[in-house]
Amino acid sequence: MEACNREYNELPKVLLLKPPPDYALFGDECFPSTKFQFLKAWESTLRLDQFLKTHAQSVQAILSSGGAPVTAEIIRLMPALRMVMTTSAGLNHIDMAECRRRGITIANAGNVFSEDVADLAVGLLIDVLRSISASDRHVRQGLWANKGDYPLGCKLGGKRVGIVGLGSIGSLVAKRLEAFGCSISYNSRKKKPSVLYPFYSNVYELAANTDILIICCGLTDETRHMINNEVLSALGKEGVVINIGRGAIIDEKELVRCLVQGEIKGAGLDVFENEPDVPKEFSALDNVVLSPHCAVFTWETFKDRQKLVVENLEAFFSNKPLLTEVVDD
Amino acid sequence: MEACNREYNELPKVLLLKPPPDYALFGDECFPSTKFQFLKAWESTLRLDQFLKTHAQSVQAILSSGGAPVTAEIIRLMPALRMVMTTSAGLNHIDMAECRRRGITIANAGNVFSEDVADLAVGLLIDVLRSISASDRHVRQGLWANKGDYPLGCKLGGKRVGIVGLGSIGSLVAKRLEAFGCSISYNSRKKKPSVLYPFYSNVYELAANTDILIICCGLTDETRHMINNEVLSALGKEGVVINIGRGAIIDEKELVRCLVQGEIKGAGLDVFENEPDVPKEFSALDNVVLSPHCAVFTWETFKDRQKLVVENLEAFFSNKPLLTEVVDD
Repeated sequence: MEACNREYNELPKVLLLKPPPDYALFGDECFPSTKFQFLKAWESTLRLDQFLKTHAQSVQAILSSGGAPVTAEIIRLMPALRMVMTTSAGLNHIDMAECRRRGITIANAGNVFSEDVADLAVGLLIDVLRSISASDRHVRQGLWANKGDYPLGCKLGGKRVGIVGLGSIGSLVAKRLEAFGCSISYNSRKKKPSVLYPFYSNVYELAANTDILIICCGLTDETRHMINNEVLSALGKEGVVINIGRGAIIDEKELVRCLVQGEIKGAGLDVFENEPDVPKEFSALDNVVLSPHCAVFTWETFKDRQKLVVENLEAFFSNKPLLTEVVDD
Repeated sequence: MEACNREYNELPKVLLLKPPPDYALFGDECFPSTKFQFLKAWESTLRLDQFLKTHAQSVQAILSSGGAPVTAEIIRLMPALRMVMTTSAGLNHIDMAECRRRGITIANAGNVFSEDVADLAVGLLIDVLRSISASDRHVRQGLWANKGDYPLGCKLGGKRVGIVGLGSIGSLVAKRLEAFGCSISYNSRKKKPSVLYPFYSNVYELAANTDILIICCGLTDETRHMINNEVLSALGKEGVVINIGRGAIIDEKELVRCLVQGEIKGAGLDVFENEPDVPKEFSALDNVVLSPHCAVFTWETFKDRQKLVVENLEAFFSNKPLLTEVVDD
């Protein structure tokens, strides 16, 4: 037993600043490994800076999640730190400049979430066109028997779909919608030489030439409020917007106005500018489907991600290539 | 003008017993043709039998919809009747035996609805797995901001989907779900030699070997209550049922019990045994999505069907092959 403990104590140390969301859902043993051990900062009675100083020489990696930023200050307290693993796809909670300066390796969740996000985008789109949530309310409220049929919906086949951001998620959305008989075009920073879908260099032109916009890009200074009044007008009265990117990519006030006034047909939204607060006007509208930023929320993918986290950390400590290392453009 | 009227009056006559549902949605001119004229029984002051006797020698075709049965009695009053066109895919409102005896040609809506039905099946499935309608309620009720995230959903990719009835609709469902990374198997009356998906000769075996059952078959004596307690038990606690066939294919009481007791995971239902009455237990459940038998309800498909009806009637009166003639097995 003593030998066993000594062996465990000699394992490389991975710092956890806060419990990852997985702990609440799957318990504390959801990143099991015999090749490293976790140091759980929140279990210590020490203040965080004292805790970090105590372990400064031994922490080789941090496992981070969105709610626990890895700041330059924290990085500087960890001279032995060589790797940051994050459970998210996004990196905006990590001081990338400081990591680069120090030569710290970064790995993220890669594309592990992409299929789930693409599935939800398609689900939201079918829901908006065919009024699934709205007609489910119609049935639950007893209106079918008392007031009759729900109004006609719109057919998905034959629709011209514009994908905004044709990365991993956008490509999977396109693949799915081709099977429904949609025609695909896209906008992204650059035309992709290997992609045959028609490319529009700006999102206004894309909106003017499509029936449906699906927002699959990240939030940057360039994409903030990119879907504005002009773009929504170009999409037009029969147009539908789906957003599984980030809320602030759409000018939400304009979107509310367009939906209320019938200037576009409908919207399916997984993300909002000030989530979890959602504009109260949405709740009164039947032409919008509201999803609580849960595009990545499936058991299977959380499990796959846990496996990926462990495999990346084990690969790092074994000097093997990481599975999802973040490499600068 | 007089010449014009005479010409119109000489056009072959198509009997309408009741206004088709299309009239309420699209107006009286939704089956336009210069090659035939409609006789509208409901516009006459005569009793139906008198009206039919008056026009007995001139009615060559009937345009029928589900709400206006074409009985043997009606057929016998129309000695000149040579064709029945129905706006539905189903034929159960037409006395087929009498039509056969008289050599009356039948045409139906063919597969014009199949894509819409397949789209709704996939939409219901994504909704059940990812809780779109339920989490939309969560957001609309303000629970996201006050109570936090909606529970994790299930991933669609990798699921084993069993299609019950691999006809036009079932095949389109399969094609769509392949794009999501599902594996397909099926049950039908006979194994289809040209289909590569694994075949199960009974639905119990199919349920025992799949995660999701999608009911795409018609209602017959053989399929009534085919999805019973045994089949639902074989599907199991993680299983999902989607029904876009007919309500009575599922033993609805058993389905309610299984959903309430968690013996299956969820259901997406467009059809019900006693629609538009829906078991009240459903309305209290978050693991069921309720759709008011609107799988074929899209503007585009209604328009396509109107065109198809006119083209079939015009082909008939021009002695050309029909587009969607019903031919006995």
